[in-house]
Amino acid sequence: VTPYELIKRKRDGLTLDPADIARFIQGFTDGSIPEYQMAAMCMAIFFRSLNPTELAAWTEAMLRSGEVLDLSETPGIKVDKHSTGGVGDKISLCLAPMVAACGVPVPMISGRGLGHTGGTLDKLESIPGFKVNLSVADYRKLVREVGACLIGQTATLAPADKKLYALRDVTATVDCIPLIASSIMSKKMAEGIDALVLDVKVGSGAFMKTVENARTLARTMIEIGAKMGKKVTALITDMDQPLGKSVGNALEVEEAVAVLRGTAAADVTELNYALGVEMLLLGGRAVDASDARKQLEGVVRSGAALKKLQEIVQRQHGDPEAVVDLRKLPRASQTTQVLAEQDGYVSAIATESVGLAGVALGAGRERVDSLIDPSVGFTLELKVGDAVKKGQPLVTVHHNGGPRVDDVCARLKAAYSVSAAKPKLSQLILERVE
Amino acid sequence: VTPYELIKRKRDGLTLDPADIARFIQGFTDGSIPEYQMAAMCMAIFFRSLNPTELAAWTEAMLRSGEVLDLSETPGIKVDKHSTGGVGDKISLCLAPMVAACGVPVPMISGRGLGHTGGTLDKLESIPGFKVNLSVADYRKLVREVGACLIGQTATLAPADKKLYALRDVTATVDCIPLIASSIMSKKMAEGIDALVLDVKVGSGAFMKTVENARTLARTMIEIGAKMGKKVTALITDMDQPLGKSVGNALEVEEAVAVLRGTAAADVTELNYALGVEMLLLGGRAVDASDARKQLEGVVRSGAALKKLQEIVQRQHGDPEAVVDLRKLPRASQTTQVLAEQDGYVSAIATESVGLAGVALGAGRERVDSLIDPSVGFTLELKVGDAVKKGQPLVTVHHNGGPRVDDVCARLKAAYSVSAAKPKLSQLILERVE
Repeated sequence: VTPYELIKRKRDGLTLDPADIARFIQGFTDGSIPEYQMAAMCMAIFFRSLNPTELAAWTEAMLRSGEVLDLSETPGIKVDKHSTGGVGDKISLCLAPMVAACGVPVPMISGRGLGHTGGTLDKLESIPGFKVNLSVADYRKLVREVGACLIGQTATLAPADKKLYALRDVTATVDCIPLIASSIMSKKMAEGIDALVLDVKVGSGAFMKTVENARTLARTMIEIGAKMGKKVTALITDMDQPLGKSVGNALEVEEAVAVLRGTAAADVTELNYALGVEMLLLGGRAVDASDARKQLEGVVRSGAALKKLQEIVQRQHGDPEAVVDLRKLPRASQTTQVLAEQDGYVSAIATESVGLAGVALGAGRERVDSLIDPSVGFTLELKVGDAVKKGQPLVTVHHNGGPRVDDVCARLKAAYSVSAAKPKLSQLILERVE
Repeated sequence: VTPYELIKRKRDGLTLDPADIARFIQGFTDGSIPEYQMAAMCMAIFFRSLNPTELAAWTEAMLRSGEVLDLSETPGIKVDKHSTGGVGDKISLCLAPMVAACGVPVPMISGRGLGHTGGTLDKLESIPGFKVNLSVADYRKLVREVGACLIGQTATLAPADKKLYALRDVTATVDCIPLIASSIMSKKMAEGIDALVLDVKVGSGAFMKTVENARTLARTMIEIGAKMGKKVTALITDMDQPLGKSVGNALEVEEAVAVLRGTAAADVTELNYALGVEMLLLGGRAVDASDARKQLEGVVRSGAALKKLQEIVQRQHGDPEAVVDLRKLPRASQTTQVLAEQDGYVSAIATESVGLAGVALGAGRERVDSLIDPSVGFTLELKVGDAVKKGQPLVTVHHNGGPRVDDVCARLKAAYSVSAAKPKLSQLILERVE
């Protein structure tokens, strides 16, 4: 079967054979199948989708395009968490040490900011000295010795996905559930994990705009995991407003530390515990959710979770003092407040706009080679449902001057809606899928 | 608007702006928009189509990607004919001189064989010395002085279409009506014509397998023509069996000459007149269809049409004697007959198989760089509806020996269906669309 015939079959709604899919992905990876044929295939998949068998074959082929890490030297069930991306989502920074402190090994390969969403690697790098580019040998060693390691994607893991993602990004085939699901799952399966908790975001700040799409994505990934013999649980969570109060790299590290001290805002604290409960259950370290919750609260109360974060930072060449003495984190030189223009209630926050305002300020990248300013970002003084008086601060902008600050403030003002009536609040955790 | 956004808009079923389409085609032609983006766009168009305004803009942009010939120095309404391709379709060879002999200038840029279908250029080149690669200046001159000129596509006409066709051919986006229609129309409009008659083939030997698809293609091309201020008439004609009795290059020249002598089979004769009537009407040289028919019969009877063919051949460097003394055309050294295996009626001829058998014999190309043998081909001794006795010849194969003759004969035998009952005959001209 030629590449042409495979594209035509998919285009016409026929089913592809797993062996043909494997050859197609292999050919794309080694360059014998040109990018224009893969572009046509991805667009055909956008319209025709992939059935579960095709999708498992597609994911498996991407996984097998590179190295698959073996963490069997570390005893226990290795569990990772993956978020589909949002604004203010600093959960990995507090969740990994908290879960590791309870004895579940957490091998975590994270990404950088993408579009309007922030990235765990960028946040970690705001800790002075912190290195995210460790060797595979060091990654294995830290998972075994520390119980957690947070690194970036390496060139050897799922190279087909790296190449395919870059192509999808320029051919309008990113927002396609089977392609999203296989991209995530091929990378995660290459880490050497045994189980995975998914945080599927939905809302104005997420890639999935409806609960229905988020549920389909969650189920699709769980199905792929099942075909590969890995347990996967998903929480569908609200991203109709930023998570927590901070947006920006060093600011989010600070808020993650607050979660581990038990002093953070309710939403980010609750989501951290909810995902931690799922990880402890999958890791076989808790008899039930209530037992898991107690253990997690225990390591926060005792300070063991924060100590684990310090250990991770130290072993990854960062300054462990920076996460207890927050003056050691990068700080912006100025703050400017965005003020409310009327009385009422905050009724909505256009979350993607907040993320893009952060990018414009330098907290994220406008181009692949843009430099990030780790110190800049926002403190959201008010969130959806909060009462507001005219002249009260909505957002504090942390910046270092420059010509774009006014524009950023204007965007933030426009992102906040204030209404006379108190809005209905949406739930933080919308569904659990397993 | 970026190329990415345009692909996404089309993918999502939104409408593209004509100016954006022009820039997209322009960028594809000059290489600033990569092939993978055009591949994704074509697949999105396969699923979402193009509305009439988009399609006119797409065609116009392809037309404007190269030179648009100006034939205004030749007085009168210049009319061409285009066939969507079939087996045994030698109509251009007799139609062009017949119409030119009636005073309508016929500027005709033709193609080579494609897949199972034959090509006018290949047939013309079986006339000793005939040249299809004339300069634009010579083409202009011959249209003016002879009233007809039959040449091949030049690199300067619609280069975007040439590049796009090659890409569609490897990304499974060939059989897409708006892309087919814009490809044909951009090339035809670049010839400098004022009006066009389309012969849209339908059936087992055509690219369009249903009358419905053929009608849609015809209407789409007529609509494009209207938007560009050109009159277009289409006939939807039967290609459920080969046209006439000959398949093969020199053999088809011979049959075209028979049409101009008034001695050819009824189907090819009738189609030639029907298309000629439409060309005379569009060319303003006849008051009605009956007047047009009389003029066409007149130039056949008087020999003026055959004389015009001789003039064309001579002015295009061919031997004008070869079309009156047919021994001067290339002749195969052997003939082999394919015999019927039972009594009954020929009920169907698998026309695409006949075309592919011709390619296998050397009458067409298996690869772009294959050499054609102008002498080989088939005489169809019986056609659909004819009574047949066991042992009677179905086809005479004209060949020069070689290991593939047996296979070709077997294919031809398999292509003929013989039934006990006399089959219902389909009409040659199914519909007229204007």
